[in-house]
Amino acid sequence: MALIVQKYGGTSVGNPERIKNVAKRVAKFTAQGHQVVVVVSAMSGETNKLIALAKEVQPNPDPRELDQICSTGEQVTIGLLSMALKNIGIPARSYTGGQVKVLTDSTFTKARILSIDETNMRRDLDAGMVVVVAGFQGVDADGNITTLGRGGSDTSGVALAAALKADECQIYTDVDGVYTTDPRVVPEAKKLDTITFEEMLEMASLGSKVLQIRSVEFAGKYKVKLRVLSSFQDEGEGTLITVEEDKNMEQPIISGIAFNRDEAKLTMLGVPDTPGIAYQILGSIAEANIDVDMIIQNVGHDGTTDFSFTVNRGDFAKAQAILETIKVQLGAREVTGDNKICKVSAVGVGMRSHPGVASKMFKALADESINIQMISTSEIKISVVLDEKYLELAVRVLHRTFGLDQ
Amino acid sequence: MALIVQKYGGTSVGNPERIKNVAKRVAKFTAQGHQVVVVVSAMSGETNKLIALAKEVQPNPDPRELDQICSTGEQVTIGLLSMALKNIGIPARSYTGGQVKVLTDSTFTKARILSIDETNMRRDLDAGMVVVVAGFQGVDADGNITTLGRGGSDTSGVALAAALKADECQIYTDVDGVYTTDPRVVPEAKKLDTITFEEMLEMASLGSKVLQIRSVEFAGKYKVKLRVLSSFQDEGEGTLITVEEDKNMEQPIISGIAFNRDEAKLTMLGVPDTPGIAYQILGSIAEANIDVDMIIQNVGHDGTTDFSFTVNRGDFAKAQAILETIKVQLGAREVTGDNKICKVSAVGVGMRSHPGVASKMFKALADESINIQMISTSEIKISVVLDEKYLELAVRVLHRTFGLDQ
Repeated sequence: MALIVQKYGGTSVGNPERIKNVAKRVAKFTAQGHQVVVVVSAMSGETNKLIALAKEVQPNPDPRELDQICSTGEQVTIGLLSMALKNIGIPARSYTGGQVKVLTDSTFTKARILSIDETNMRRDLDAGMVVVVAGFQGVDADGNITTLGRGGSDTSGVALAAALKADECQIYTDVDGVYTTDPRVVPEAKKLDTITFEEMLEMASLGSKVLQIRSVEFAGKYKVKLRVLSSFQDEGEGTLITVEEDKNMEQPIISGIAFNRDEAKLTMLGVPDTPGIAYQILGSIAEANIDVDMIIQNVGHDGTTDFSFTVNRGDFAKAQAILETIKVQLGAREVTGDNKICKVSAVGVGMRSHPGVASKMFKALADESINIQMISTSEIKISVVLDEKYLELAVRVLHRTFGLDQ
Repeated sequence: MALIVQKYGGTSVGNPERIKNVAKRVAKFTAQGHQVVVVVSAMSGETNKLIALAKEVQPNPDPRELDQICSTGEQVTIGLLSMALKNIGIPARSYTGGQVKVLTDSTFTKARILSIDETNMRRDLDAGMVVVVAGFQGVDADGNITTLGRGGSDTSGVALAAALKADECQIYTDVDGVYTTDPRVVPEAKKLDTITFEEMLEMASLGSKVLQIRSVEFAGKYKVKLRVLSSFQDEGEGTLITVEEDKNMEQPIISGIAFNRDEAKLTMLGVPDTPGIAYQILGSIAEANIDVDMIIQNVGHDGTTDFSFTVNRGDFAKAQAILETIKVQLGAREVTGDNKICKVSAVGVGMRSHPGVASKMFKALADESINIQMISTSEIKISVVLDEKYLELAVRVLHRTFGLDQ
């Protein structure tokens, strides 16, 4: 007998028929003697509908009141799923975040979980019930309803699994696992049976958006066994996200090729090479609430250096304007930028113990005459910035180069 | 400065535009220096939509889970109204029943309020805020969400007014007050400036469904000054529901003519006139969950008596079948019934001190050749059962007879 936390997203509970299917899937696990806690999102489209309604009343909705409203989406789903379970003879009880209680800080619309009280859930599980919990939400110390922000239901699932010391946290979604790259770009892409948390983090942040990144961090931190599965297929083991690389098996050097076509690069040329320059540039960007992805500064010469970074394409014009403003006060020579770029990354914990991965990657790209504009590396990832027209070609070449097709 | 509780029904908050109008109305009161607590229902249609969704999943929905779901309707409205208030510069904070907290028993879908904690509301009012509370809902001692049943928002409003010792509880609805009778039947019907609680109770139970009857009982019990107003008119004082009849003024003898066209009558003829007979007949009816309205038993003769009562027309066939079954064991002679009847009532506290009201009523009906089938009276009400074809005529005649047209 195991204790399993299952999380179903908005598409998986999008209508009464699908909710009944989720109930049947849960029933398969209880029939095997497992205890099950189910975490659900709002039915697909509901949260957007509520936000639109709020904006009709207040164009810039008050965050506390927005959470009061948006939390109702999951509250409806938990009631419906509990009914669907009872309807097929499975005892069940629903809980809002507040009823659990999932204690959060008071940062409305993007609260962080502080603690989870397992008392009620444990009592119901011991009484043979399925516990159905509203994802995405909690309650602060003053009893205000909070939400964890978009995709927060994944985080709820993992946090509940951690609190209950569950044997496994299963995230049901509309894909059947994590792939070596996007199958729409490379038809030969293969589903991975396992991937490490670190690899998953690099994959997620790079555009393979299967899981909310916060939930992966959370799972890694609390050593929750996390599995991604399809809620629309009856078979399949999905992808298990493991705490450590499997020492007993031959590791692939590279686990996957991630990419992002939504970036733009900016460079400030001829910046005086003095301490504090990076802070002065990026401080202004951060103040404007612009997220920065890659940051590259090479060694300077003649007392100046070049400073580059990438941002979301939507922030390109804004970031460019800021750089033009501070160019003068910094005494820099020129601001250049390009929003027709893409980022392609090879990710794998295996590269730690295998030198030469980077040169293999660069040679493969050179063989196809693809020019590399920027390079950035971490322990388990090598990213390159390319002209966006090379994206598909580069991803396919690298996927083949690192043997991911087999 | 007064403390006012205002309750707005589903039609009054039916869309963003109407919610903004409610905010403007609240603003008029705060501008006059009043403290305001607003109680709201779900947007019209929402509760029915949620119930339909529940029934798609479980044909006979689990009561606890149904309350979990249905309570979200009001939760959305409180968030929206708070936003609308903030949007015009009025500080406001929303509360679910659980957040207040409105403690109820655990009778899901028709819970009764046990107590109300005024701490949070009082703190916010003292800080100059408008407090927006979800009607219709509460929380039981175990933290389960409960609802008070259909129309329960009126009760929430009155209960909050009682707990806060508010100066007035204003119920905003789609009519501008309580009328002497239904204006659709008698165009000359007049709006009453005041009506007593007892009269209101008799009027409400007889079909003038302006206010939920439980809320009127509650207001009478806790001496809450209750006023019915239109949320669609800017002017008008509505109808004030008073605890006592105004001793200083000339009371009208009759305040209104109520009627109900949804009844059926049943009679058991020749029942042995022995103790316990009423219980034996009505016990079987109650067991079948059939509500009984009028009950009439006249003095018997020759050792037998006739026993009559009225039920909702929809229960007529069922009640008739039950009577046929028990007829034999009671040794009664015959069961008769008629579902083509109506009930017309004259209501007024004035009749207590004015003898002759009944005979005046019967004479007026006789003058129009309207045959009276049954008569039942209380302290402040005289009801007659008539052939349904006489309903409009009888109501008009009585309205004129008691001078309600002037």
